[in-house]
Amino acid sequence: MSNATITVLPGDGVGPEVTSQALQVLRAVEDLYGHTFTVHRGLVGLDAIEEQGVAISDATFETCAHSDAILFGAVGGLPAAAKRAGGPRPEQALFRLRKEFGFFANLRPVRPVEAMYEASPLKPEYLKGTDMIFVRELSAGLYYGHLDSVPGKPSEIRHNGQEAEAVDTLLYTEQEIERVVRAAFEIAAGRRRKVTSVDKANVLSSSVLWREVVERVARDHPTVAWEHMLVDACAMQLIRDPADFDVVVTENLFGDILTDEASMLTGSIGMLPSASLGVRRTEAGMFGLYEPIHGSAPDIVGQDKANPIGAVLSAALLLRHSLGLTREAAAVEEAVEDVLREGYRTVDIHEGGCTVVGTSEMGQRIRHKL
Amino acid sequence: MSNATITVLPGDGVGPEVTSQALQVLRAVEDLYGHTFTVHRGLVGLDAIEEQGVAISDATFETCAHSDAILFGAVGGLPAAAKRAGGPRPEQALFRLRKEFGFFANLRPVRPVEAMYEASPLKPEYLKGTDMIFVRELSAGLYYGHLDSVPGKPSEIRHNGQEAEAVDTLLYTEQEIERVVRAAFEIAAGRRRKVTSVDKANVLSSSVLWREVVERVARDHPTVAWEHMLVDACAMQLIRDPADFDVVVTENLFGDILTDEASMLTGSIGMLPSASLGVRRTEAGMFGLYEPIHGSAPDIVGQDKANPIGAVLSAALLLRHSLGLTREAAAVEEAVEDVLREGYRTVDIHEGGCTVVGTSEMGQRIRHKL
Ligand SMILES: CC(C)[C@H](C(=O)O)[C@@H](O)C(=O)O
Ligand SMILES: CC(C)[C@H](C(=O)O)[C@@H](O)C(=O)O
Repeated sequence: MSNATITVLPGDGVGPEVTSQALQVLRAVEDLYGHTFTVHRGLVGLDAIEEQGVAISDATFETCAHSDAILFGAVGGLPAAAKRAGGPRPEQALFRLRKEFGFFANLRPVRPVEAMYEASPLKPEYLKGTDMIFVRELSAGLYYGHLDSVPGKPSEIRHNGQEAEAVDTLLYTEQEIERVVRAAFEIAAGRRRKVTSVDKANVLSSSVLWREVVERVARDHPTVAWEHMLVDACAMQLIRDPADFDVVVTENLFGDILTDEASMLTGSIGMLPSASLGVRRTEAGMFGLYEPIHGSAPDIVGQDKANPIGAVLSAALLLRHSLGLTREAAAVEEAVEDVLREGYRTVDIHEGGCTVVGTSEMGQRIRHKL
Repeated sequence: MSNATITVLPGDGVGPEVTSQALQVLRAVEDLYGHTFTVHRGLVGLDAIEEQGVAISDATFETCAHSDAILFGAVGGLPAAAKRAGGPRPEQALFRLRKEFGFFANLRPVRPVEAMYEASPLKPEYLKGTDMIFVRELSAGLYYGHLDSVPGKPSEIRHNGQEAEAVDTLLYTEQEIERVVRAAFEIAAGRRRKVTSVDKANVLSSSVLWREVVERVARDHPTVAWEHMLVDACAMQLIRDPADFDVVVTENLFGDILTDEASMLTGSIGMLPSASLGVRRTEAGMFGLYEPIHGSAPDIVGQDKANPIGAVLSAALLLRHSLGLTREAAAVEEAVEDVLREGYRTVDIHEGGCTVVGTSEMGQRIRHKL
């Protein structure tokens, strides 16, 4: 019986709609399996900026710090005018959470459900057997190589004589590379034992160092097969032969790009969950942040159209990785598959012969399968 | 009647095999249309390193400088041991050519031929109407923000106390952004009048500056529609709705990744040509470098397996952009389509019911259609 504290940060756009469904799934798990989940809520993103002047307040941060896990919705969608005026940006909430909690490994599983092959732009024969997990480095690289990523500091657009220039810095230390690569090899050891490390070593110094570290870590895992792949080749190979991948480990921005691309294998970015993990342990697992990989989708806000599956599957990862509730996590994942197999779809994954349902009905149907 | 000088740099791996076919196509055009092409050859990449100690010698560079156009094969594939030992790397030939000749705009058209829809991993209904051109910034950004990109300078892996760290710098000046964005808007004005500018403005300072410049340039082109798109969203959208794009303009590394991904729309990276253009004019066009976007493909060297179409279509771009031979360029492009429509395929684009031919037979069949 688990007694856990979860902080929910719904954020902007469709964030509240999808986290609401994910939270109701957690509540159903609580009831069915006799656990006690204490839930706190916090503001992040646009509302936090409006009410508190920052994308995430110290108080909200503290609440997170005293939880076993964070369930996160989405942030972003600042109107262009506000962006140009400077000031805090909603994304800074994410950057601060990732950095200060040391969430260096962002896990993004991609496993197209056979019942849904038709929803993908790819031909079914290309999807067969696809089951990969990305391990995206999340706490360093270009995301933190510009002063702007730290709330309150100025951006680095500077004036150099008569014209402006802008600079971002891609920096990795050996240790930052090593910890995420180790995580990837450990995950691979429990899966199909293959690691693809993605870089741009024919151009970037940081990638040359990345390769050195991968080769060293690989020597500690003699039973795991591994390969280096250039990021441009990987962007191609993800479409050409997705079943070829098992664990993919890569730096922060490459991981951002490649996982959005890979989401198309499942038919929609609305399908994919993620878990961000660091070093702090909870009673039964790791402290972590769980969020669907989609964004705030301002165009469909408040229309009961958003796909809650990415958020619900993120809740499943929360159960597994932070609360150690493996059986419950699997039950949620199976409930999602059951509903999809019965032909219910949100509009983003709609195909002929299926029944389109809204965000809340999809959530409800998943809960009923538990 | 054109009287032009072309320097051919076959390079490494399959580079010589595919440029040989492209050059024979140019020779056929010369004969058929009564032009005179003076052809020089130069070493780049591994052979240049072995014989001359550098990836491209000053003498070869000079030969290029006195030409109207450069036809380039591929470079790369240095054995791992040599890489670790430091020393010159084959890719430096490309970096130097791009930088010193000021080739800031790399054009990469992506137009899947209907007869070949089956070769793509995507369902045909997703490919319908796809006809886009990438304008990749080619002379700045992360490619030049590390000392290692300039032959002879040390890499930037440095030791910081007890551990190594590596840094790459993404720098753009306003002018570097403006010239490539202007090129994109001008190209769009002659096409379907839509520009998609791709960046990561929710993270990178350089992207914030990029957006400012795009908005300014857009005001000079009131008849061209345009949009900003985040690079992660674009990696998704290229698969989800490729027909939605007309002209895509983006920074160097994003362009590298996205164009390899987009090559999958045509079924193979072996299909795609590119033109790198700068500021120098020739008698009838622009001085430029033309290369297929694929790499040296060491695994299939010398087997008559490489797809020469990317190189042949690069020769067509050479005819159009550097020599002003529009009709001849179109004839080459049509010859390629004819051969594909007749069902001849290299092995990378093979599908049921088609006839597999080698590199040289494919080249020959294209020439016969001229
Ligand atoms: C919102 C944005 C800053 C974020 C990122 O780039 O990391 C998002 O795209 C993601 O993948 O979590
Ligand atoms: C060979 C390599 C350095 C090059 C690049 O990254 O620019 C290639 O991938 C390309 O796209 O032309």
